[in-house]
Amino acid sequence: MDELKIAIAGLGTVGGGTVKLLHQHADLLTARTGRRLHLVAAAALEKPADLPLDGVSFFTDARAMARDADYDVLIELIGGANGVALDVVTAALGRGRHVVTANKAMVAHHGLKLAEQAEAAGVTFGYEAAVAGGIPVIKALREGLAANQLNQVYGILNGTCNYILTTMRESGREFSDVLAEAQALGYAEADPSFDIDGIDTAHKLTILTSLAFGTAVDFDKVHIEGIRHVSALDIRSAEELGYRIKLLGIARRTDAGIEQRVHPCMVPISSSIGCIEGVFNAVVAEGDFVGRTLFEGRGAGATPTASAVVADVLDIAAGRRTPTFGIPATALAPLQTAPMDNHHGAFYIRLMVRDRPGVFAGIAAALRDAEVSMESILQRGRAPGETVPVVMTVHDTRERAMRKALERIRAIAEVVDPPHLIRIEAF
Amino acid sequence: MDELKIAIAGLGTVGGGTVKLLHQHADLLTARTGRRLHLVAAAALEKPADLPLDGVSFFTDARAMARDADYDVLIELIGGANGVALDVVTAALGRGRHVVTANKAMVAHHGLKLAEQAEAAGVTFGYEAAVAGGIPVIKALREGLAANQLNQVYGILNGTCNYILTTMRESGREFSDVLAEAQALGYAEADPSFDIDGIDTAHKLTILTSLAFGTAVDFDKVHIEGIRHVSALDIRSAEELGYRIKLLGIARRTDAGIEQRVHPCMVPISSSIGCIEGVFNAVVAEGDFVGRTLFEGRGAGATPTASAVVADVLDIAAGRRTPTFGIPATALAPLQTAPMDNHHGAFYIRLMVRDRPGVFAGIAAALRDAEVSMESILQRGRAPGETVPVVMTVHDTRERAMRKALERIRAIAEVVDPPHLIRIEAF
Repeated sequence: MDELKIAIAGLGTVGGGTVKLLHQHADLLTARTGRRLHLVAAAALEKPADLPLDGVSFFTDARAMARDADYDVLIELIGGANGVALDVVTAALGRGRHVVTANKAMVAHHGLKLAEQAEAAGVTFGYEAAVAGGIPVIKALREGLAANQLNQVYGILNGTCNYILTTMRESGREFSDVLAEAQALGYAEADPSFDIDGIDTAHKLTILTSLAFGTAVDFDKVHIEGIRHVSALDIRSAEELGYRIKLLGIARRTDAGIEQRVHPCMVPISSSIGCIEGVFNAVVAEGDFVGRTLFEGRGAGATPTASAVVADVLDIAAGRRTPTFGIPATALAPLQTAPMDNHHGAFYIRLMVRDRPGVFAGIAAALRDAEVSMESILQRGRAPGETVPVVMTVHDTRERAMRKALERIRAIAEVVDPPHLIRIEAF
Repeated sequence: MDELKIAIAGLGTVGGGTVKLLHQHADLLTARTGRRLHLVAAAALEKPADLPLDGVSFFTDARAMARDADYDVLIELIGGANGVALDVVTAALGRGRHVVTANKAMVAHHGLKLAEQAEAAGVTFGYEAAVAGGIPVIKALREGLAANQLNQVYGILNGTCNYILTTMRESGREFSDVLAEAQALGYAEADPSFDIDGIDTAHKLTILTSLAFGTAVDFDKVHIEGIRHVSALDIRSAEELGYRIKLLGIARRTDAGIEQRVHPCMVPISSSIGCIEGVFNAVVAEGDFVGRTLFEGRGAGATPTASAVVADVLDIAAGRRTPTFGIPATALAPLQTAPMDNHHGAFYIRLMVRDRPGVFAGIAAALRDAEVSMESILQRGRAPGETVPVVMTVHDTRERAMRKALERIRAIAEVVDPPHLIRIEAF
C-alpha cells in the first residue's frame, strides 16, 4: 500500500498526543485516505519512554532530522516564532516537503513568507492546529465558507483567559487570586504573559484576519489589551447589565479599513459567544450569504491539538490542496487596518472617585462636552469622603470621543485612579 | 482561463440563491480556485425573470438538461427522494459528471447507491447543503474531525421545530397556536408534517450517522417522534427543572449497537445545545481525541443553503476529493442499531390525573414495581375531584423499565390520559 512518511519535530504534550493518535488510529486513517501514515522519524531533546516509537528514527537535533531524514511531511511542534522551529520548517519546505504545524507565533510572524515558499514548491503548509485547537476552523473559513465574503470573524481564542474569567464570575474572586490558582492547577503558565496579555489571542487573530479578508498576516497591526485590569467588580457589574466579559479577538471590515483588535469585551449573556465558558474556545464567522456561524470546542491540550494536526496530514495524504490563506499567497493584499480611534461602539467605564456631592455632575458634564451620550451611571456603595467605585455605560460613540471624555474625567479632582474601559459588543 | 461548467436543476428559493451567489461572487470564487465557475444551463418549470440567466441555456425539462447539456457539475435543487430529482442525479452520475445536491430525503433514501455510483465513476457526489444549511458540518465530520473515532453526533437539525419550541417558551402559548402563526409567517409549510413529525430531522440524522460511524445510510432504522405532543406545560416544567426542550437527532455508539433516534429532549439550559434558539441549527460531534465540538448557524433559507451548495462546487473546482461518506462507499458497514428499549437515561413524564387522595401513592408503587427510581413528582394546581396535570422526573433507567412503569401507571383508575414522556439528555 502507498504510504505517507511522517517526521515529527517536538515530542512534548502535543507531539506525544500526535504520536499516540497516529499509532492508535492507524487503520482508521488508512481507511479514510487509502494510504498508510508511517511515522519514520522523530526529534526531541530526550526520547520519551512512554511513546510508541519502535522503528522510528530518533534525532536529538531537529534541524538534522529536517535536513537528512527521508519524509514526505514534517510536523513541527517545537513552538516559538523563530529559532529551531522556523529553521526546521524552512528546511523542510526548501526540500519540497509538506509541513504541518501548531505554531501560531510562527504563522503570525512569518506566515506570508512560509506560504509563498510552500506554494512555490507546490507543497502544503498546514496550520489547522494553530488556531482554536481541535476546532476545524481554518478548514471552515478556507473551504466550508469559501463562497462568502466575510464581514467579520471574532472569537474566544485563549482557553486560559476564558477559564480565568469564568472562574472569576463563578467565584466572585479577584484576577490575581484566580490566576495563581490556575497556575497551581497547570491551566496557566508560570509566566502567564503570553496568555493574559492577549499576545496568544493576537497571534491567532492575525491568521483569522488573513483567511477572512484575503490579506497578508500582519501581527504588528493588532491592537492588543489583556485581562489583567478586569476586576471582580467589573465581572459583577457586567452580570447585572446582562453581559459576560470575554477576551475576544475581533477582525471586522469597516469603511475605514479592517479592525484587528484583541481586548476584553462585554457581550450579551444570551449571545452565542456569551455562552462559551471555561477552557472552551469559539470562533464566529459572519458571511454575506451564510449569515452567522459559530464553531466551538477545546482550544488547547494534547488530544484536541493532535486531532487538528492529523486532520492536516489527512488532507495531504488524500491530495486535497487549498491555497495557504484561501487565495494564492502572492495575491494576498497588504492589510489596511482601521485606526482604533475610529472604532464605534458602546463602552463600560469603571472609576474610583471620592464620595463627595457634585462628582456625578462633573462626570456628566465631561461626557456632554465630548459629545458622548451616557446610558447609565451607578455608584457602588456609599462612604462619604472615602473612595468608592463608580461604573457607567455609554451609548455607541467613536472611540476618539470616548478617549477625550476620559481625559476630562481624569482631570476631575475627585477621580483618583485612571478610568478603566471595557468595550461593549452587541453581537 | 480554465472553467468549470455548471448546470442547475431547480430555480426555487435555493436555486435562485445559488444563481445569485455564482453571479455576485464570480471573481472571489475564481480567486479561490483558479477557475471560472460558469453557469451554462438551468432547468425549471418556468424561467424566473429576476435571476441573472443571460447566456444560460434554459430547459423546462430537467431530465433533458441532465441528459443533453454540456456540463461538468450538475446541481440538483428540485427536492424529493425520488422522481425528477433522482432521475437527473442518476443521469448526471451515469455520464460521469459531478453532482451537488441539497436533497436530504434523496441522500437519506438512496445515499449508499448514489455514493457507489459516483465513486465508481470517479466523480464527486456532494451534499453539504443537505444537513444544517450553511454550517459546513459535512466537511467538519468528513475532514476536519477525520482523525477521531466519534462517539456521538447530535443536533438541532430543523429550524422550524426549534423556532416553534423557542416561541412556545418565550410566549407561553400552546403548540397548535404557535404552529398556525409560523405557517402564517412562512416559517412552516402548509403541510408541516415533514418538519414537526421529525421526518426532516431523521433524513439529516441518517447522513450524520453514516459519516460518524462509517455505516451505510439507513433511514428505516431511525426511531422518530415529533413535537406535536409537547405542551406549554412541558415547556414551563422544563424551565423550572433547569432544562430546555429541543427536537434532537441523536446518533450514539453504545455496547448494544448504534442509537439513531429523533425525539424531543430536555437538555440543560446551560449546555451548548440548550443555548441554540429560534431558527438556528447546531450539530455537536464528540470525538475520542478532539472532545466535544459544536457547529452552529442557519439551517435553512436561500442564502445559507446556497453558501453550502457552492462550497461543494469549490471543492470540485479545486480538485479536492473525499469519499462520499468519509470512507469508500463499498467499505461502509451495515448499520446495527441498538433497540430503543435498551436506551438508558432519565425521563420526564406528564400525566393527567383525577385529583384524589392516594394517586401519588399508586404512581410511586407502579414505579417501584418496575424498579424505576423517582427523582421528583409535582401536581400542577389543586382541584379536588377534577383532572389536574402531574409531572415527574425519574433517574437514569432502561427505557424498557420505563415503558413497563408507564403501563402500570396507565392502569391506575385516576390516570385519565396516556402519559407523555420526554427523554432527558444530560449533555
